[in-house]
Amino acid sequence: MPRVAVIPGDGIGLEVMREAVRVLEAVESRFSPGCELVHWDLGADRFLRDGITITDEEFASLSNDHDAILLGALGDPRVPGNQHARDILLGLRFRLDLYVNYRPAVLLDPALSPLKAPGDIRLDIFRENTEGVYVNLGGTFKEGTDRETAIQEDLNTFTGVERICRAAFEHAVKRGRSRVTLVDKANAMPAAGRLWRRVFALVASDFPDIDTDAMYVDAMAMDLVRRPTRYEVIVTGNLFGDILSDLAAELVGGLGAAASANVHPGRHALFEPVHGSAPDIAGQGVANPLGAIASAALMLDHLGHAEAAQAVEEAVVAAVDGGVRTADMGGDRSTEQVGTWIADRVLSG
Amino acid sequence: MPRVAVIPGDGIGLEVMREAVRVLEAVESRFSPGCELVHWDLGADRFLRDGITITDEEFASLSNDHDAILLGALGDPRVPGNQHARDILLGLRFRLDLYVNYRPAVLLDPALSPLKAPGDIRLDIFRENTEGVYVNLGGTFKEGTDRETAIQEDLNTFTGVERICRAAFEHAVKRGRSRVTLVDKANAMPAAGRLWRRVFALVASDFPDIDTDAMYVDAMAMDLVRRPTRYEVIVTGNLFGDILSDLAAELVGGLGAAASANVHPGRHALFEPVHGSAPDIAGQGVANPLGAIASAALMLDHLGHAEAAQAVEEAVVAAVDGGVRTADMGGDRSTEQVGTWIADRVLSG
Ligand SMILES: CC(C)[C@H](C(=O)O)[C@@H](O)C(=O)O
Ligand SMILES: CC(C)[C@H](C(=O)O)[C@@H](O)C(=O)O
Repeated sequence: MPRVAVIPGDGIGLEVMREAVRVLEAVESRFSPGCELVHWDLGADRFLRDGITITDEEFASLSNDHDAILLGALGDPRVPGNQHARDILLGLRFRLDLYVNYRPAVLLDPALSPLKAPGDIRLDIFRENTEGVYVNLGGTFKEGTDRETAIQEDLNTFTGVERICRAAFEHAVKRGRSRVTLVDKANAMPAAGRLWRRVFALVASDFPDIDTDAMYVDAMAMDLVRRPTRYEVIVTGNLFGDILSDLAAELVGGLGAAASANVHPGRHALFEPVHGSAPDIAGQGVANPLGAIASAALMLDHLGHAEAAQAVEEAVVAAVDGGVRTADMGGDRSTEQVGTWIADRVLSG
Repeated sequence: MPRVAVIPGDGIGLEVMREAVRVLEAVESRFSPGCELVHWDLGADRFLRDGITITDEEFASLSNDHDAILLGALGDPRVPGNQHARDILLGLRFRLDLYVNYRPAVLLDPALSPLKAPGDIRLDIFRENTEGVYVNLGGTFKEGTDRETAIQEDLNTFTGVERICRAAFEHAVKRGRSRVTLVDKANAMPAAGRLWRRVFALVASDFPDIDTDAMYVDAMAMDLVRRPTRYEVIVTGNLFGDILSDLAAELVGGLGAAASANVHPGRHALFEPVHGSAPDIAGQGVANPLGAIASAALMLDHLGHAEAAQAVEEAVVAAVDGGVRTADMGGDRSTEQVGTWIADRVLSG
């Protein structure tokens, strides 16, 4: 009986998560995975009310009493700097040590891409999720003066690099992909570069059937636009993964449909659409629920319900193919209409 | 009598610089700016022969006896890690304190863009060029072991941020642009973010007629693809500027035509095409000389020869319009044919 913590969060997070839950209920009827959905009320309202982002007890419960977390989106213009969002999202990634941030970018319809000749884009980005500049080490000297100096440390460890590289190669084998590409900036960041290149090669030697190559991040950003189909699996650090996964999502039609998994294999996992809380369109019923629904599919797969995951993925593809789309994808359906259509499709098979 | 150090460098650097020099000779005949071109033989051959990248005396001479440097490209597969390229290029940027890296990206023909609906892209990217992760501080603990930890420091100072922001705003005023956009990653790098946001606002207050906004780098990478015409002047740190300027160049047709200026206003300046030495196509006469020629135009403008600069820029636009293009731009002309055509055009006016 897997227990899933559902955190709708803020803004359109609430709207898209309603549809993801609707689809999970359809999955329950059809495949009986026995998922128990536990609603968690974290977000801006709670923070503004109680001044609490997330407590140690809540972290412990999410970590110990749940098999997965499904998150909508966090962020609210009433909270300066969105401190609650960073505390909760980055807090969960770090405290649950969710070192794999897996972000697939698949083009479902060439019309969705801003590129003239996108080709058949199918990118699997593996972003290291617990190190790099996100460790938030460093600080400020003489803050607020004209001598202010700010230092932000980018920290990478053998263990951190090894395990994300291994996850990328294992994924390549499992999904029948032929190449893993390392992205770094070894020509300007030699200490980080030496570590990543050595460990990448070390891990690669355990996977002799998978080809490898390495790209600098500037060249990669360019080449993702120029010839995205050249790449299959990309493995990279936290910051470059953040940038490249947003770029890749845009190339396949925007953040609306982008899903992600934050995983510590064998231990914990959090699934979330890549988009944010989008306060500008919240409450209008126009948000695209596909990112949240596709994230739920990644979760089902992670929980061992591959058949159910595939049914959801197929229903998402069918919705896009059938023009059942929200405005960001050129359609005219509401969030709920898309969610209901997909849930029905999952039910009827 | 401005003295210009011409460093062709390696690979296609030699080929494109030949054309830039040809165009500068045409400029000399027509406008008589009195530029003296001094050939500098730095590059992989010299490094492989003598083990020297660039000496202190050479730095001093480039710094004291020349008014500008025009660089082709550095990089050679025979040099491990292209150490000579980093030593010379980053050495010049840092030792001459060339803090402004100005990289314009202008779409000359919609057919050149990989985007379906590029619109009229005209981006001026101001990349901080002497700080950030490029300071190469940090190091490695227990290198080569399974406990290796690599730290790379991102360092920004008030002075560094202030002067690049000021350069961006001054440029906006001079070129009649209405908005400057700051790009950072303040939500994951708070120390750097606080400094950049505070100083950006401080400088902005001196330019009340220029609008401002701020974007996270991941959202910016995405939005540059989604709606590039929304942006005019972008100011950002060294690493994000590296990534975004390559991406922007690709959106307007690739690196071939991308020019850049590395400047310390009032002191020193180095001009170079954004592309590298491209060993894969070197020696074939197919390299695009527009990046080098447009960089020479930026140099002429910097040296106070605005009319000559404009003549070169117009000739570049005319070449592209007239289909006088190398293969990377869909044409069939050689490097020399494009260079000769532009030189003739400059001569005949
Ligand atoms: C909200 C922000 C801190 C976060 C990140 O940078 O990781 C977001 O951009 C993401 O990609 O999930
Ligand atoms: C060669 C490399 C060190 C350099 C950089 O990262 O600055 C290049 O990419 C550039 O943009 O000029």
